[in-house]
Order: sequence, then structure tokens, then C-alpha cells
Amino acid sequence: MEHNIYIGAAYYPDHWPRERWPVDIRLMKEAGIKVLRLAELSWSFLEPKENQFDFTWLDNFIEMAEKEGIQIILSTPIEASPVWLRHKHPEVVRHDRFRRIHGDRGMHCHNNSTMTFYIKRIVYKMAEHYANNKAVIGWQIDNELRNVDCYCAECTEGFRKWLQVRYGTLERLNQEWGTCFWSQVYHNWEEVTPPSADQLTISISQKLDFARFGSDSTVNHLNRQVEIIKSFAPQHFVTHNMLGWYPNLNAYDLSRNLDFISWDSYPHVDGDNHIETFLHDHYRGVKQKAHWVMEQKNGYFNYSDYNLAIEPGLVRLWTYQDIARGANGVVYYRWRSNKYSGEQNPNGLLRHDGSPRRPYYEVKQLTNELSKFGNELVKTTVEAPIAIIYCYDQMWAFEAHKQYKNFDHREHLLTYYRALTGLGLTVDLVEPTTDLSKYKLVIAPSIAMVSDEIYENFNSYVVNGGCLIIGARSGMKTWSNTTVELPWPGLLAEMAGTIVDEFEVLPDHYSNTITYKGRDYPVKVWLDMLENQTAKTMATYTQKFYAGRTAISKNCHGAGTVYYVGVMGNTELARDFLEDVAEDLKLKVTNVPKEVYVTRRVNDSDCYTFYINVNREPTKVVIQETGIDIIRDKHVSGEVIIDGLDVLIVKTSY
Amino acid sequence: MEHNIYIGAAYYPDHWPRERWPVDIRLMKEAGIKVLRLAELSWSFLEPKENQFDFTWLDNFIEMAEKEGIQIILSTPIEASPVWLRHKHPEVVRHDRFRRIHGDRGMHCHNNSTMTFYIKRIVYKMAEHYANNKAVIGWQIDNELRNVDCYCAECTEGFRKWLQVRYGTLERLNQEWGTCFWSQVYHNWEEVTPPSADQLTISISQKLDFARFGSDSTVNHLNRQVEIIKSFAPQHFVTHNMLGWYPNLNAYDLSRNLDFISWDSYPHVDGDNHIETFLHDHYRGVKQKAHWVMEQKNGYFNYSDYNLAIEPGLVRLWTYQDIARGANGVVYYRWRSNKYSGEQNPNGLLRHDGSPRRPYYEVKQLTNELSKFGNELVKTTVEAPIAIIYCYDQMWAFEAHKQYKNFDHREHLLTYYRALTGLGLTVDLVEPTTDLSKYKLVIAPSIAMVSDEIYENFNSYVVNGGCLIIGARSGMKTWSNTTVELPWPGLLAEMAGTIVDEFEVLPDHYSNTITYKGRDYPVKVWLDMLENQTAKTMATYTQKFYAGRTAISKNCHGAGTVYYVGVMGNTELARDFLEDVAEDLKLKVTNVPKEVYVTRRVNDSDCYTFYINVNREPTKVVIQETGIDIIRDKHVSGEVIIDGLDVLIVKTSY
Amino acid sequence: MEHNIYIGAAYYPDHWPRERWPVDIRLMKEAGIKVLRLAELSWSFLEPKENQFDFTWLDNFIEMAEKEGIQIILSTPIEASPVWLRHKHPEVVRHDRFRRIHGDRGMHCHNNSTMTFYIKRIVYKMAEHYANNKAVIGWQIDNELRNVDCYCAECTEGFRKWLQVRYGTLERLNQEWGTCFWSQVYHNWEEVTPPSADQLTISISQKLDFARFGSDSTVNHLNRQVEIIKSFAPQHFVTHNMLGWYPNLNAYDLSRNLDFISWDSYPHVDGDNHIETFLHDHYRGVKQKAHWVMEQKNGYFNYSDYNLAIEPGLVRLWTYQDIARGANGVVYYRWRSNKYSGEQNPNGLLRHDGSPRRPYYEVKQLTNELSKFGNELVKTTVEAPIAIIYCYDQMWAFEAHKQYKNFDHREHLLTYYRALTGLGLTVDLVEPTTDLSKYKLVIAPSIAMVSDEIYENFNSYVVNGGCLIIGARSGMKTWSNTTVELPWPGLLAEMAGTIVDEFEVLPDHYSNTITYKGRDYPVKVWLDMLENQTAKTMATYTQKFYAGRTAISKNCHGAGTVYYVGVMGNTELARDFLEDVAEDLKLKVTNVPKEVYVTRRVNDSDCYTFYINVNREPTKVVIQETGIDIIRDKHVSGEVIIDGLDVLIVKTSY
Repeated sequence: MEHNIYIGAAYYPDHWPRERWPVDIRLMKEAGIKVLRLAELSWSFLEPKENQFDFTWLDNFIEMAEKEGIQIILSTPIEASPVWLRHKHPEVVRHDRFRRIHGDRGMHCHNNSTMTFYIKRIVYKMAEHYANNKAVIGWQIDNELRNVDCYCAECTEGFRKWLQVRYGTLERLNQEWGTCFWSQVYHNWEEVTPPSADQLTISISQKLDFARFGSDSTVNHLNRQVEIIKSFAPQHFVTHNMLGWYPNLNAYDLSRNLDFISWDSYPHVDGDNHIETFLHDHYRGVKQKAHWVMEQKNGYFNYSDYNLAIEPGLVRLWTYQDIARGANGVVYYRWRSNKYSGEQNPNGLLRHDGSPRRPYYEVKQLTNELSKFGNELVKTTVEAPIAIIYCYDQMWAFEAHKQYKNFDHREHLLTYYRALTGLGLTVDLVEPTTDLSKYKLVIAPSIAMVSDEIYENFNSYVVNGGCLIIGARSGMKTWSNTTVELPWPGLLAEMAGTIVDEFEVLPDHYSNTITYKGRDYPVKVWLDMLENQTAKTMATYTQKFYAGRTAISKNCHGAGTVYYVGVMGNTELARDFLEDVAEDLKLKVTNVPKEVYVTRRVNDSDCYTFYINVNREPTKVVIQETGIDIIRDKHVSGEVIIDGLDVLIVKTSY
Repeated sequence: MEHNIYIGAAYYPDHWPRERWPVDIRLMKEAGIKVLRLAELSWSFLEPKENQFDFTWLDNFIEMAEKEGIQIILSTPIEASPVWLRHKHPEVVRHDRFRRIHGDRGMHCHNNSTMTFYIKRIVYKMAEHYANNKAVIGWQIDNELRNVDCYCAECTEGFRKWLQVRYGTLERLNQEWGTCFWSQVYHNWEEVTPPSADQLTISISQKLDFARFGSDSTVNHLNRQVEIIKSFAPQHFVTHNMLGWYPNLNAYDLSRNLDFISWDSYPHVDGDNHIETFLHDHYRGVKQKAHWVMEQKNGYFNYSDYNLAIEPGLVRLWTYQDIARGANGVVYYRWRSNKYSGEQNPNGLLRHDGSPRRPYYEVKQLTNELSKFGNELVKTTVEAPIAIIYCYDQMWAFEAHKQYKNFDHREHLLTYYRALTGLGLTVDLVEPTTDLSKYKLVIAPSIAMVSDEIYENFNSYVVNGGCLIIGARSGMKTWSNTTVELPWPGLLAEMAGTIVDEFEVLPDHYSNTITYKGRDYPVKVWLDMLENQTAKTMATYTQKFYAGRTAISKNCHGAGTVYYVGVMGNTELARDFLEDVAEDLKLKVTNVPKEVYVTRRVNDSDCYTFYINVNREPTKVVIQETGIDIIRDKHVSGEVIIDGLDVLIVKTSY
Repeated sequence: MEHNIYIGAAYYPDHWPRERWPVDIRLMKEAGIKVLRLAELSWSFLEPKENQFDFTWLDNFIEMAEKEGIQIILSTPIEASPVWLRHKHPEVVRHDRFRRIHGDRGMHCHNNSTMTFYIKRIVYKMAEHYANNKAVIGWQIDNELRNVDCYCAECTEGFRKWLQVRYGTLERLNQEWGTCFWSQVYHNWEEVTPPSADQLTISISQKLDFARFGSDSTVNHLNRQVEIIKSFAPQHFVTHNMLGWYPNLNAYDLSRNLDFISWDSYPHVDGDNHIETFLHDHYRGVKQKAHWVMEQKNGYFNYSDYNLAIEPGLVRLWTYQDIARGANGVVYYRWRSNKYSGEQNPNGLLRHDGSPRRPYYEVKQLTNELSKFGNELVKTTVEAPIAIIYCYDQMWAFEAHKQYKNFDHREHLLTYYRALTGLGLTVDLVEPTTDLSKYKLVIAPSIAMVSDEIYENFNSYVVNGGCLIIGARSGMKTWSNTTVELPWPGLLAEMAGTIVDEFEVLPDHYSNTITYKGRDYPVKVWLDMLENQTAKTMATYTQKFYAGRTAISKNCHGAGTVYYVGVMGNTELARDFLEDVAEDLKLKVTNVPKEVYVTRRVNDSDCYTFYINVNREPTKVVIQETGIDIIRDKHVSGEVIIDGLDVLIVKTSY
């Protein structure tokens, strides 16, 4: 069966009386909702008492839905374990740095063997029961997983084993962590612990490794569930719904055994839309294939200092943006507004009283539109000629030693990212060991820790003609978060053709200025003073005792080019500099109006250019090639006005 | 014996050498101090070792004081238990959410059976000893009680029993709390606990009930003491001195078994005087009868970021304001300044060195003035034609889920309260189930949880001709803090004749504007977009996509009227709107100058109008009717100048 | 052997391969580095396993260094105990107020007997081994000691014993602490505890005594080590390197058994230079003899929100300033930049890669300069005719009851201190019981607690002709932090000839104004209204109800004078007032340009006047007497221009 973009909703048959089910299913059909996500918080109802399973209610609902052509995504209901389990085994949740037991939804220890036993059993039972249910198309494994940062006895033991695998010997660990510092040399594996509150002094190398261990533990926790599901139902897809911006869990590792990755999108009405597009570009980049949005906000926030009304058009716009950035499935959170506990704001397509809210009608319009061309879109992928390196280990390393409160790794990436968006260029946010050969430009602005593998990947990319931008802090560190004995940028110095002689890190109330191509730009945060070896100077400082020294350099290396940008924090600079680089690389730059977001989904024959107008007012764009406005089914070319919070998709040949 | 307004002081004979006692008593007499509060922090001296009681020193002092005509209020000395008790039973104090034992004055567990044993014994001994002492006129039970928020084993068990009484069955509890949410269904009473830190997820319904349980526990703790005192000395009054603004303890419940309620008033020299008048109007409203101020500040703060000098006249003004708002007793804190630990700033009528401070002479003047007319005032009550609903359960519900940091329930009430003060109108702050029939206007601006009982009370009030103002958030919730399945304002929708279609909650940096009677008013925080059913529109929005929609509506219901005010945060709007409503209701509005506070104490024949001038400069007021200035004993009428920080009381016939 | 100012560096032979040692030693010699501090963080390498000692590596290094004429300061390596010790004895570190075990470098309990055993053994072994090593000149005992604020069982027992020694009987303790307050009377020594979190109410007298006990415990911990070192090596000096600004440890007590005191200087590039000079003047004042800087910053901060580049000239300037304020030894931290954990910023004279950083060359220039005149300077001492009382007990008392967040004891001292610096006057910061007879002026602005001993010291100083300035809060308290029963300033009232009638403490947004010698000055924080007895009025308030009352008074007492300054927070007032006082006392005032710091090192025949120009621009100074610029070896007189960040030392006869 040829399918369309999947449009669905999260539903809780366990929360509403059975008499209501048919009403809801009818309303879903009318709105074009054809997929439901079920059961991710239903453990209490699926296993009401220990080892007593009850799938009847869920079977009944699925049967009713299937009859109306609705497909089902089941979730493993692990995030919210039943009260009986915790009452019997209080220790299965997170132990904090003081080894106190802590509650919080989903905060089960991912290494606890008791918990693992219960998890495996419920997942086994569900997989066995639903493997051959024809309504079921796939599974969401667990829900919005987090690195639980647990310090229990099993985590302590697990961390030791993880280190033994990583380092082999204690001597190697002592060397890599630099335990000679502050006299913390280990002589016995038993002495090695997580960075708990009572440790005399905690090493930032240890903190980094504990972050890695925590991420790995969560990946294992997911994979244990994946394995069971796949053993029963290899034909079902498995995915996971990531929290939007969640740096504590390595999304690359987590998604390796999944068919595709999903994420949960909760935009702020008055937020910076680049945050959402950035996350799309990352989660698409994770597997470099189509992703899903498993929870798309349609209503009020439940956890926010304020709650703006969602203006007419926004829910439809968000959904088109999901698709424009590569999503092939969008599931709304949630069908009907919840009445209980901490999530009582109207957050459903229906009100608490069961009547449709305004976004219900927007979804109806959208599914109607997609019925005309969604089946074409699913056969395309997003065109992205640029990669930004988005490396979890770097973030953990910076977090393990948060020296400067105004250095924000993500904000630093966003400076480049926003500039590229303004130039109409789409990026993938990828890991540093990805095959980079398909990208015309790779940006790794602050990749402090450079392993041999990363060095070789970058070097071979550049030597073979690639263009790489690195910058302040790059290459300073070993993969264990200690400083290299080489001149900075360490392993990257040769390809950059420059070394860092001195630097300073400015607080927000200070700045310096650089001159680049005859124009002055204020710069801030981290400023490197470069001593070029083979590179040539592109920009120089104008103030303080280091006025005249190099701030940005350019080096030819093999068939490629490396730029070292020793300064931070100026969006105009990023834009002007990247425009020059893009021109050199013959990338197709389009100057899009502010708050209009342009991406292309393409296949061998066709190109669908999305213009998402996040402005509240009508905005003019210039269409380069004549094409078809597939929403309104008419030809467009030249200057076109897009309404406020509206969308234009232009189909051309590719 | 005909009595006057009681003017007293807190005294600590246990802190000073006996040789000093006669000096102090002479100075008291000279100042007109005729009541002393004793012993509220003297357990160590009354029971110096376990089960060894020593009342001699107190007997001696009382005997000496009685000879000079001084009357005694005794306190049960529970707040500060002796060191020997805690040393023997470390567990009798508060256990926090992690079950750690915590210290802090008064933070004994109110459900601990060991502590209860010791409390009952000392209270029994004191009651038995002083029941027939002629100097003693009454008792202060404990001191500034707080809800101790304890999570010990006895509180856990107590909470379970409290829930069993409330809900009967676990099924009912599951339903009311909505434990289907996040899969937290209980199957066994043993699984139910207080909202401790290690609970997987805490329900806001559970938090609300735990707040109620904590308040009830404290009320029981007080009533256990009341019962013992009354069994020995039914002729003595019993009261309790509430902390001024303390939302965690239900003052209505606490005061039911008391003869009257008292509170402790510590105004800021540069604070908003409405806070003190608000508290007076509340504590008078609690039992709708005369209250006391059991601790009236006369000196420097001990817990404050700064300490302004108390200007000449202020202590006398505060005392007259206490009386103007209904107090029939005012006890200064304290007689002589304390030398020890955290309360060493000069806070007594005497200095540390035993000499009188400036306020001593103000008290002397005041008692001299009261000797002329205080006996008349005690026979009057405060005239208050308006009620504001001040409901502890609502505050706990908002606290259990503090969604929006700029929504402040008390501040919301104060918007209405301040507007009414400016119109010369006095209110009672009362509970929602009070008989409202005597009020011309009832304001319940954000009564989110509406029980059947509240609904019926409000409805019968309105149907019988009352005028009710409700507003944003009203009626959204069940009495268990979950959202109703009805259109909002839920049970109040029919009487309001309007429903809430959408809303938004603005942060401080956004606002919208409404038009009311041709004038524009900025509004903020929570804005409701109303869909009138039978109501008519009084004000509409002027901005954003909902411009033109209804913001304030008015509905006729039975013989009465209901206003729904869907906006917040504008004092001018509150004033203009309430002035119109008051005019409709033929309430007597007087435009009083800024920072002059007008109230009336009346009886069948006489009316005493108090003008309290909190301005530092002389201020002109206009007296409507000719009357007698009873302080200066002369006729006044028309325009009168009141000195800065001075008081005018005009007696007229009623 | 005649020696020079010692210029050294901290070195870690245990961090670098042996092959590197000769390279480093050669580079040291070239830079004129002649002293190394070793081993303060090397316990793991000196005792790698319990009771197995290894001094070979250290012997080898010292032997190699000695051959090149480098002298050694050894440290007892206590701050960073080995992992094996903590693994075997987890309890030897700090227990917090909840008795949780806490880690953090150096946070060992100073009363723990197990830890004491291990400390004594390693110190004994080192002392025995190095007592006769000719390269070793002295010892640094431990490193940057802190009061660890531990609540373990041994500290509890220790605190009780400390109190028994202090007060003798429990009755006396009850009286001094005022335990009648809040009914906390002790009847049994077992009931007395540190101020732990579970205590019902904590007394601020108890908190003060616990701060004293903590400081004393740390002093004992140091003295135990001193005793062992001195028993083996009486010819070696012993010192300790204090944290710069660290109020929780009594530096006077700590230094009594040391040959001299040292401190660690980490100036901010953009900080207030008065902070460093203040600390110099204090640590010089502690023993009233030459001190050392044991760690002088030369590179980037490791713990800071930002990191400015250290401008050319600054490291040399800091070192000259150390010497100008009395240091006879300056040891840079550190030789080569560290690679590991939390201190990875380039903080050495060498880079991570082993090449010299810019400051290396400044040190080389400096040692070259000192080779010409350093041997003369070591024979001089700093001229300081004024004392400011800097009393740890007062700081602890204020800390035990931090009433007003905008009252900062140190900032209050700095108001006077900065004014004196601007007048070219140098002060010693000394303890209140010091012999004051050598000072022309003594300033004790807020000495709240006045013991009999302090009273007698002050009184005899004044009676014999001294000039004393006291001020707001002075004399209010007993030595146990309770309020006196005397009119304030208590024991100082008679010598001040005035008493405090009232006061107010203003928040930052309020001020008042005083008139002093016809000029108006805004004043803030704490304002006393004085009632002169024998004193005469120097300044009066101009605002509020106390306008016209006395703010500053002057009293003749015996042959001397006492000023009471009842106001705070105005630097112009401090300067104008102190200029008048200095003129009266015939102190030599010189008006130095802003950011130029003038001090004199003198002996019987010569005077070396240091002008340290902290301005970044050349600055003109006026030399009163013709002398020799000993750095540039030429005569100077009259107007001289000093370059930005440069130093002038003028030698004249004395």
C-alpha cells in the first residue's frame, strides 16, 4: 500500500470510559487522524498486579479502531512503573550523589537488575501478544529517555566494568585521567567509583566518563527492549521519541538499533524558531534519513512560566515545518486534554469537555491538503550540503568543567546555524566520525577533544578537497578531557596551519573588535591570538595589546581548505564570513526574508521547496524557477506573497 | 467590671533578676500597661527536668503583678521544648521529604505520640495550677503555629487514616486523584504515602490533601491543649496568636474552638499598609467578631534585610489602626529588649539597659487617651458590607501546582482589596462557605476549586439578590484539584452566563488591553476569552487575534447579578469597575486621600469613624457629618487637617 | 651567606618524565628561579601504599636541582590524601550539618584521630628523611588550610571539651550564651552539641564558639605538624600559605608557631588592586614582620567566570608590589602549565608543550633587576604608622547572625583603607590585643564585641596619647555575642564620651546626609544617632526626624582622642575626615595619583619608596626628595613619569 505522511495522535483509552471510545474514533476519522500512539504510560493497567497481565481493554480498543482504518503504534510502558513495583522494590530508582533515593517520572536506574527483570517481562508479554496484530505498525520503545545519573551499588559496579573495558588496566586509567593531579592515583579497581559527593576530589575526566557510561547504560536499557520486540515482530518498526534538546544522551548511539528516530516537539509561541529547525536538522542527521515527530504540541504548555495562546495557523505551520525538515510522521500530543495532576492545561485537540478545540480544525485542513501530495513527499529526502559537527562527548566535556558561564556550546553552534539559515542553506547536524565526503562544507567550531579517529576523518575529508571550519578551543584536549602537550589546536594544528599563542575569555561586559575584509565586528567570549605557520591571515584584532594579531586564518591543506575562527559571538560576522565561504564553494545562496525558512525535499526527478513564513504578517519571497504551488494547485513564479503563519510548497523538476 | 481596650506587653520574668521585677511593674503602671502575656517560651523553667515542675517563680511574679492591678494571659509553652526532651527523643521534630530530622523553633511533629504525651502533661499541670488564679484572664495556646510539613512514620500513618476517612475506599481515592495519570494506581492502602522525595511521581491532588492533612494535624494539636485548659478553667478565654501572613494553616478551622483569634503584627515602616489592614480584615472575618493583636511591633526588626527607625507617632498609629479594624486587645512585643541569640535588636519598650525607649512614651499617651473613650469602643463592631472570599484550600491547590510564577493569588485579591480601601469601603475576608446573606457584594476572583457546597452557597446568595464577582480560573477544578469535564467556569458557568473559550497567561513583559466603558486598560497575567451564553459583554479586548472578544461579562441570575472578570492586574480597572458596581448596589463610597484609611466601628446608636493618616505630612479629609473628635474632645465638620502619622476618630450617631 | 629576595616556583617532578627534569632546571636557572616548592600534593607518590614510603624520586630530583644551586621548600603533603586512605577510612573527611560525608580537596576532619595518625606518620617520615638535606631551607606546612566546619562524632566531643575549658561550668555556658532565650537551658554536658541541622534552635553564641573551635582545631592540626618538623629540623623555617581572603581561620593564632606567614596571591587583571595590598598589609601585620607570597599568579585563572589576558608588565608589577608591601620571598604558581582535571588553563611560566610563556621573560628581567639591589631590600621593613583592627572573632560574630545583607565588615574596613592609600599612608591590619603603642592612629570601625582585655588595650592606648576611631556597632556586644546591658558603645562609651540613642540600618535604595565641616556627604547602611556626654559634635544629620542630631563625635580621653563615626559607606567622607585626623596627628600625607600605590621600606639609614603604577597609561608622580631610581640606576627628583604597569623605586636616606 502506498502510504502518505503519517498524521496521528497520542490516545489514552485507559483514561476515558468505553462509551466515549466510538465518539473519539469518529472525530479522529473526520480530522484525518489515521495513527494512534497507545500505552506508553499504561503499565498499571497492563499489569495491574505483579505478574497478572490484562491486555483485554487494549485489545478491545485496537479492534474498534482498526475497523475504522486506524493504525497503531504501541509503546513499551516503562517510563511510569506501577506503584506496587516501587512499593516492593524501593531501590529500583535513581540514587543521587549522596545515595539518596529519588523519585521522578522515568527515573529508574538503567543498570538495576530487579528493574530489568520487570521490564523484560512486560515487554516480552506485550511483544508476544501484539506481534501479529495487524493494526500495529510499530513500537515506540520507552518514552523520552534520560540519562538518570544514578550512583547506586549496581551503577558503581557497572561503571568499574565499563572502565575496565575502556582502559584495560588501572595504569592506563591513571594515565588518561591524570590521577597524579591532586594525588588521586588508584592502586586497586575497588577504589574507583562514580563521582559521588563523598569522593575527596572528583576528576573532570572521571565526570566525562561517567556521563558516557550513563548514556551507554540508557542505550543498553533501550536495546534490551528493542531485542525482545524484534524477536517477536521483526516486521514492526521500532523507534524512540527523544526529548527535543537533551544533551545528556548520545542520540547517535541510541538510534543505531532503531529503524528511525523520533523526537517530541514543543515549540514556544514566542520562541526562536531556529531551535526547532536545529533539532529537526539534528535528528534527521542522526541517521541521515527521515525521522518522525512523535509528540507535536497543539495546545497549552504544562510546564512553563507563561502560556501564550497559539495563534490561528500555527499548528498547521509547525506540522508543515516538521515535514519540510524531513519528518515522515507527525503525531499530536494529545487527542483530548488531560484532567489530572501536573498536566491539566488544555493540551489536546479536544477540550476537557470532549469538544474540539481550534487546532482540531487546522489538522483537518492539513490532512485534507496532504491527501493531495503527501504520497509524493514521502519519496523525497532533504537536501543538505553542509554539516555542522554536533558531538555529545564535547558537550559532556564542557559540562564536566563548566569554566565560563557565558560560553555556551550550543549557542556557539547556533551562531553558525542561524547565519546559514538566513542564506537559505540547510545543514545536517552529525557526529564527528560520520562520512563527511558528501558535504561541501563542514563546520566544527569548538571541537575541543580530538581523538585519532576524528583527526583522521577530518584530515582525509580536507585532503580530498573538503572545506573545514574550526575555531577557538578546537583540538586542545585528549579524548579523556585532559590538555594535549602539543601547541593548540593540537592534532588539528597542521591542517589549520596556525597555532594559538595566547587567548582571553571575556565576560559579557567586555568585547574586542576584529577587522575582516575592511569591516569591523565586535567579538566576545573566547578570543584566540593566532600565530600563523602556513596559514594566511583573514582577520585581525584592533584593540588592546594584541591589536594586529591574527583572529581568523585560512590554510590550504591537500586539496582542501581549513579556516580557523579564533573569535565568537557575532552573528553579522558569521553571516558575512559564511557567505564568502559559500561563494567560494559555489553553494547556492538565497537571501530569504527574516523569519522565512526555506528547505528542499528532493528525489531524482522532483524538487519541493518549502517556504515556511513564521512572520505574523504577509511576507514577500522571490521564487527563482517557475513551479507549482502544490497546496493551492497553481503555477507560481517571481514575487509571491505568503500570508502570515502560512506555508508555500513549490514543486519544480530537479 | 466594665473594661476598656486591653493594652498589654509580653514579659519574661524568667530572663531578668527578681530585683528588677518591681522596677518593671512600676514602669508598666506608669505607661498604662495592664495586661501581661507570660510563659510562652518558658518550658525549661516550668519543667526544668523531666516530670519536675516548678511554678514558684511564675507564681511569685504573678502575685507581685496582681497587687498592682495587672492581669495575666498565660501561654502554653509548647513552641520551645526543653533540651532534655529533644536529647531523650530526637525524633519528635519534623522529618523532611528525605526523612531527615530538622530543627527550627516550634517544628515539632504534630502527630508524634511521644511529643503529645509531654505536651499534654505540661498543659495539664499548668491548667490545674492556674485555673483559679484570679490574676489570670485567659490563655494563649502555643505560639505562632505552623504547618510543620512532616514526613515521619506517624505522619505517614496519620495521612493514610485521614484519607480513609475522607475517601472511604481506595477506588474513590484513585478516582479523585486521577491516579490513572502516569500509571500510579493504588491497589493497597499501604502503598499510599505522603509526597516524599523518593515517590516516583507526586500527584498535585495528593499534595493538596497533604497540605489539608498538615493543617488539620495542627488544628488537632491546638485543640488537644484547648480541651485541657477549658476542662480546668472554663471561665478563662483561649486564643491563639497567628503569624500575620501565613497561608499554610487554615485559620477558620484553627479558631473554631477558640474564644477569639489573635495575630502578631510586625509592620514595615516603609511597607504597604494595606497588608496590615488586609490581615486585620481577615482575622476579624475569621470569626466575624473582635480579635486581638497579641504581638504589636514597637521596635526594630530582628529578621530583616534592613531596619528603618520607627518615626515618632507610628507606634500609636499602629495601635489605633488595630482598634479601628476591630481589635479589642493590643499586646506589645515586648516589654524590654532581648539580649540573646538571634533577636538582639532593640525590640522592647525599654532598652537593653532598662531605660524607656521613645515608644514607651507614645504608649503612655495612648493609654491616657483610651481611658476617655476605650470603654465605648469595646461595645462596637466594624461595619463591613463586602466580603472577599479568602480560601486556604485554593492557595494550597495553586501552591501544589505553581504553574505561573507571576500569578500570585494574594496579590490578585489585593488588587480588589486596595481599590475598595480607596473607595472607603471595608471588607471581611471570609471562607467560601460562610453565610453571605449579610453582604451586599461578594468577590471571589479566582476560586478555582468549587465544591457542591460552595456552589450552593454562592448560588443561593445570588438567586436571593446578591451580587457576586468571579474571574479567571474560577470553577476550573474539582475539590480534589483536577480539572472538571464541564466548560469553564464549571459549576459557576450557569450563574455567570458565560464560558471560557480560550485563554492566555502572559509573562511580565507582555500585556493586552481591554476597553471598558470607553476607556482602555492594560491587562496582564491570565486573560480569558469569553463566549457569552446569557451574559452581556462589559469589556472587550483590543489586541491580538482575539480583539473584540469579551473580557468582562455581566449576568442576571435569579434576583442577583454575577460579573465574570476574565482579566487581571490593573488597579485602575479594579477601582473604576468596583466604583460602578458599588454605585449600582448603593454602597456608600467616599473618596479618601491616598494613604488615609477609613473604617467605622458602630453599634445600635453610635458610629465612630476612624481616619488613620499614614502619610508623613498633614493631610486634609472631608467629614461628611458633624461629629466629635473624641481624642481631642471637640466638634469637627467639613474639611479637617490630620497631622502626619496622626489619627482622627469622629463620633456621630448611627 | 647574604641572601636576596627569594624568587621561586612551584614544581611537580612527580608529574613529568625524568628526562624533562634537566631541561626544566636549565630553564629555571636562565630565568633566575632559585627556589622550588615541592611535594605539597604528592602523598600518593611518597606513600603509594599504606606504610610503604618512597622518597627516591624526590631525592633524585632535589639532588639534581641542588647541583644547579636551587634551594628547596618542602611541603607536608596533607591536603590531598591518597585514595587508599579514604577507601579504607571513608569517615576521615568532613561531616556536614546533616552528618553526611563530603568530599573536596583538603576537607579532612581536623579532629579525626585516624587521620591524625596517618598525618603524623607521613610528616615524621619526611622530616626524618629531609632534616639534614642541605638543599632544603624550609617547610610549608600543609596547603591553604581551611576551617572544615565538621560535625562528626569526634568534633562533637571535641567541641564539648573545648567549651568545658572555656567556660568551666555549664551554668557559666548557659549564662554566656543566654540559653534562657527560647528555653534552651542545658542541664547536662551531653546535651551540648555543634550547631547541627537537627538542633531545635541554634544560638548565635554557639555558632560563634563553634567557629572559634573550628579555627582552633585547624591551628592544632598545623601545630602537630610544626612540632614534628621542628623536632627533626630546628634550622629549617616553617611557614604556611594562607588563602588570600579567608575569614574562617584566625591567621594570628595560626602563625604563632611559624617562623613567618605566607599567602597565595591570585589578582584579577581587572580587579581592585586594594584587595591585594590589603591582604599584604594584613599578612605582614599578622606577625609584624616580613612575609612571603608562596603562590604568585602568573597565568590564567582556573576558577573564574572569565579569563582576561595578563597584559605585558603585570607579572613583574605584581612581584614588585609583593616586595613593596613587605614580602621577602615570591614563589610563582607554577612552573609548567598543568594538563589534568580542573586546572588545565595555562597557569605556568611554561606552556603545556614545555615552551616559555610571555611571563617567563618578565621574571627573567625581574631577577636580573633584583640582582642589583634585592640584597639591600631584605634588610628593610615597611613603614606603617597606622593600624586598622582586623579581628576574626568579629567577622564570625557578624557571620553567626548576618542581619543585614548590605553590611559587609570587610567593605567597611576597606572604606577607611582605600582613603588612607589615597593619602599615601600605609597601615598594618592587626589583632585588637596587639601592642598599639607604636601606632599614631588606630581604627576599629565596627568592633562589636569588646572583651575586658580589648577594652584595657584600647583604653591604655588612648589614655597614653593615642588616637582611636571607632564607629557604628562598636561595643554593643559581650565576647560571647550577646548584647551588653550598658548604653552603647558599651565598655567604650566612657572613652568615646557619647552614647547611641537610636539607629537605623538603610537598604541600598535609601540614604541620609550628614554635614561635616560645611560640606554634605550622603551616608548609608548603619546610621547611629548620638547623644554626646563629654564628646563634642563633628558632624550632624540633615534629613528625617533626626536631622540635627550628632553623627560623628570627638572626645578627649586622658592624653588621647577618640572619634566615634556613627555612619558608613562614603569614601569621600572617609578621605576628608582622615586627612583632617592625619593633619592633627602630623602624619606625612602625600596626594598620590589614582591607581598609583606608594609604600616605603626603611632601615636605620635608608628609605626605599616604591611607586607602583597600576594604570595602563604613563602617570606623573612628584618625588619630594631627590633620590636614586635603583632599577634604572639614575637620580630622580621632582616630576617623574612612570610608564603604564611599571614601577619606580627611589632610594633616599632615612
